Amino acid sequence: MARLVMKFGGTSVASVERIRNVARHVKREVDAGFEVAVVVSAMSGKTNELVGWVEDASKLHDKREYDAVVASGEQVTSGLLAIALQEIGVPARSWQGWQIPVETSDAHGSARIENIDGSRIVEGFSRKEVAVVAGFQGVHAASGRITTLGRGGSDTSAVAIAAAIHADRCDIYTDVDGVYTTDPRIVPKARRLDRVAFEEMLEMASLGAKVLQVRSVEVAMVHKIKTFVRSSFDDPADPKPGTLICDEEDILEQQVVTGIAFSKDEAQITLRRVADKPGVAAAIFGPLADANINVDMIIQVVSDDQKTTDMTFTVVTADFERAKALLEKHKAEIAFGELQGATDVVKISAIGIGMRSHAGIAARAFKALADKGINIRAITTSEIKFSVLIDKDYTELAVRTLHSLYGLDKA
Amino acid sequence: MARLVMKFGGTSVASVERIRNVARHVKREVDAGFEVAVVVSAMSGKTNELVGWVEDASKLHDKREYDAVVASGEQVTSGLLAIALQEIGVPARSWQGWQIPVETSDAHGSARIENIDGSRIVEGFSRKEVAVVAGFQGVHAASGRITTLGRGGSDTSAVAIAAAIHADRCDIYTDVDGVYTTDPRIVPKARRLDRVAFEEMLEMASLGAKVLQVRSVEVAMVHKIKTFVRSSFDDPADPKPGTLICDEEDILEQQVVTGIAFSKDEAQITLRRVADKPGVAAAIFGPLADANINVDMIIQVVSDDQKTTDMTFTVVTADFERAKALLEKHKAEIAFGELQGATDVVKISAIGIGMRSHAGIAARAFKALADKGINIRAITTSEIKFSVLIDKDYTELAVRTLHSLYGLDKA
Repeated sequence: MARLVMKFGGTSVASVERIRNVARHVKREVDAGFEVAVVVSAMSGKTNELVGWVEDASKLHDKREYDAVVASGEQVTSGLLAIALQEIGVPARSWQGWQIPVETSDAHGSARIENIDGSRIVEGFSRKEVAVVAGFQGVHAASGRITTLGRGGSDTSAVAIAAAIHADRCDIYTDVDGVYTTDPRIVPKARRLDRVAFEEMLEMASLGAKVLQVRSVEVAMVHKIKTFVRSSFDDPADPKPGTLICDEEDILEQQVVTGIAFSKDEAQITLRRVADKPGVAAAIFGPLADANINVDMIIQVVSDDQKTTDMTFTVVTADFERAKALLEKHKAEIAFGELQGATDVVKISAIGIGMRSHAGIAARAFKALADKGINIRAITTSEIKFSVLIDKDYTELAVRTLHSLYGLDKA
Repeated sequence: MARLVMKFGGTSVASVERIRNVARHVKREVDAGFEVAVVVSAMSGKTNELVGWVEDASKLHDKREYDAVVASGEQVTSGLLAIALQEIGVPARSWQGWQIPVETSDAHGSARIENIDGSRIVEGFSRKEVAVVAGFQGVHAASGRITTLGRGGSDTSAVAIAAAIHADRCDIYTDVDGVYTTDPRIVPKARRLDRVAFEEMLEMASLGAKVLQVRSVEVAMVHKIKTFVRSSFDDPADPKPGTLICDEEDILEQQVVTGIAFSKDEAQITLRRVADKPGVAAAIFGPLADANINVDMIIQVVSDDQKTTDMTFTVVTADFERAKALLEKHKAEIAFGELQGATDVVKISAIGIGMRSHAGIAARAFKALADKGINIRAITTSEIKFSVLIDKDYTELAVRTLHSLYGLDKA
């Protein structure tokens, strides 16, 4: 019998009425003959409420206790959905992470799934029982303590459960009806994609598209889980298919560029007049790496005097102040003239597996942006994407320009 | 080293600010050299919110899912209190029922504790760690599913944990500062008792005093746990001792009557003109027992015609409609003339271990109530208490009359 994992996020389970609607979506698939495991998030707003209490209790709180508190949100929805399913005649039971168990590392607050025993869920299928799994949570086997996977972790729970029970498909229900060529709130001409390749989705999620947690796409890619992104707000009796995330071989008409992503969560740091000698990059980036600060785009420009260089790079906004302080502390070793920082920047990225076989894709973008008077502060490229860092004020203009340039606008 | 269990109810942990106050109470005892396990309820109002969602999802809900949902309330407070304790320098960790484990029966929604393994909590003591235990919840060992103990169950959790870790004392912190001779809202002259015997407390709790769950007193009595009822609203730096519940041998000056309890949760049923023949009581009470309806006071009066009898008894209000319907259904077998019911009644009880050695205690009450023009509808007595059923309108007058009669008024 075909096996299906369905995942519902916070807005989809925001009230008992919404949970009843989710139950109708699940019943449709059960009636169609699927063995179903459902993964649920906490009611929207609940996780923020719980996190608020934890932070009120202590700014420097024990992450293990944070996890015990915050995991309770998913516990509530899993029980409520099991009840709502039984109410419409669908046998169901809730599963907490420790009951399955979903074993994770002990990195509380952002634990990684290490092993899932799917056998008890599969046993339930033989009793015609839908498994309602509390997402986002697991247990550290050695200590027996509750762990959580970090924000958006329920997506990862769903895909990992799908791998553990050898599901034929994983449907991620959300408040949008699929993956778009870019954010439709910025580009009204954005189109919903019927299919997108795992690699593309991974880049899109990493580069700012918020529809799926990055880690969940990695897990889906490794285990080759066919994953749909679709809307829980569709009529349960007549839902739309959404967007399929799949192997690139399963995509017939490949576009050169599939989507445009953007991230405002970037900050730029420029070190002026750094001595242009071997070992300077290590002197700059070594201390940042030691402090777990991730550096993204890096460009180096020889300055006017030909003896020094200007070094520009980006970090996520949350690390900006810490990075600046650290560099000032190491100013003597690095030997730079001046530190300049900017947070009024945005990173715009174009993603597409077609870039592998087409040259000059990025060059067309540089010209199109220049024609609009948009100055590019930094550039990075990789096999299937390129990114440019520009002034935040030009976000919408730049995204629309690239979206049109690569033929992504709706007909 | 002396070992202590401290239990805090819902109003004591109603907010992060209140939880911080609880942490200060715990720190005081740790600083005094105690090894401490703390048992917490859910934040007040939370359990009702969770129960409301469950009932909204389904009137006839699966009790196992009810337990999974409702137990989340205590999970939240246990984590928050552990964090609040760490914040003021007291090492602490939270314990869920399944982590200890607190093993219970599978009577979901009102499970009974069957076994508690206290060893991991005691191990924590050797690391100077306060154990913060989520009250009210346990786990059914065979199924691995979460159970709850029923309303007020955290009191029972606390006393049972005290027995499991061989605690020297169990302090139940609540929103009142001890056990009173009667409800001070009705009798301003009510006095706080310094000590009350287990047997008396058991009767008081059973007969309407709401300060402790009945089951918790049973467990304390069986395991001879010295239990204090005291106020969490006292200054943590200067708390009052509250009321000690203890063996009767530990009470030096025994009163004949220790307290007056009352319960408005009673309904009266009278069957008129029942045939006065052997087997009639079985015909009446058999079907009620089969339906799990508990019958309390029973009186039988031969009626005017000398051939039939009137049978009066009480049930709790929640069972009233069900009991009436059941009796009407069995009307032919029982052969009664008419069924009369009343819910405008109250049961007033006087409790005291001194009654064992003093005759005529109840008789004095009957006269005193008659002098005030209060009609007695039914009477029951046992070794250390007697109860009278009267019109609800006379509740305050009757309680005040008996309170004065037995010398319980404040000096």
